[in-house]
Amino acid sequence: MAGCVFCEGGRPPADHRIADLGATVAYLNDDQFFAGWTVLVLKRHAVELFDLDAAERARVVEEVSRVASVLQAAFDARKLNYASFGNQIPHMHWHVIPRLASDPAPLESPWNVPHAPVRLDHAALTTRIAGLRAGLGP
Amino acid sequence: MAGCVFCEGGRPPADHRIADLGATVAYLNDDQFFAGWTVLVLKRHAVELFDLDAAERARVVEEVSRVASVLQAAFDARKLNYASFGNQIPHMHWHVIPRLASDPAPLESPWNVPHAPVRLDHAALTTRIAGLRAGLGP
Repeated sequence: MAGCVFCEGGRPPADHRIADLGATVAYLNDDQFFAGWTVLVLKRHAVELFDLDAAERARVVEEVSRVASVLQAAFDARKLNYASFGNQIPHMHWHVIPRLASDPAPLESPWNVPHAPVRLDHAALTTRIAGLRAGLGP
Repeated sequence: MAGCVFCEGGRPPADHRIADLGATVAYLNDDQFFAGWTVLVLKRHAVELFDLDAAERARVVEEVSRVASVLQAAFDARKLNYASFGNQIPHMHWHVIPRLASDPAPLESPWNVPHAPVRLDHAALTTRIAGLRAGLGP
């Protein structure tokens, strides 16, 4: 959709792309304070769950679940957090956020853990994405 | 599960129950700062999306979507927010939160809007729940 930063390809950054999952494309979140934080962006422009049909909703939740399972294994997460807000960018996207044993505030939502963003250098970014691609399999 | 406050019925409060939706039971959230804030609690004890099978995941997302649609209509919401964290109570539950035109911080996540909890009196609680039941239909 014109004016949508996701549709126009401005974000997420192309070098953060993990994989095309079918209904969504998975990207490593730019801020990796929560190691493994992944964002799944719907491939077409839609906003609310009720704007999708039941088959598409099922595909999206399957992809969110698949990524969560890979993140749990890759980072030995104690809990996964799932959220879709769209308050800043309405184009549907899902945050899947591993909460590790080292989490500084394990009882709080990810949005209640003040922190400086953690941005990986190119080598670390490439390694992390490669690991998640391997976890997702073919 | 023993020790789980949701399984043992201690929460959510019974008088906040809206409806049994099939896989989940919907309750009006105790804090109604975001008018209509609803929590769907899975009827059985499970924690992560990948602990469910695909059919159960699809049922859950259908129920989340159905509630979101009812909330959008009931409150003329400009956006719905969806989240499942489980950091304090791991038993799976989904927050469905309408964001209205009157929202004081429409770009922020619900967890980034500091506020005093809004608790309805008995009459207002009963009225709100009845309205959502009517929206859900038979």
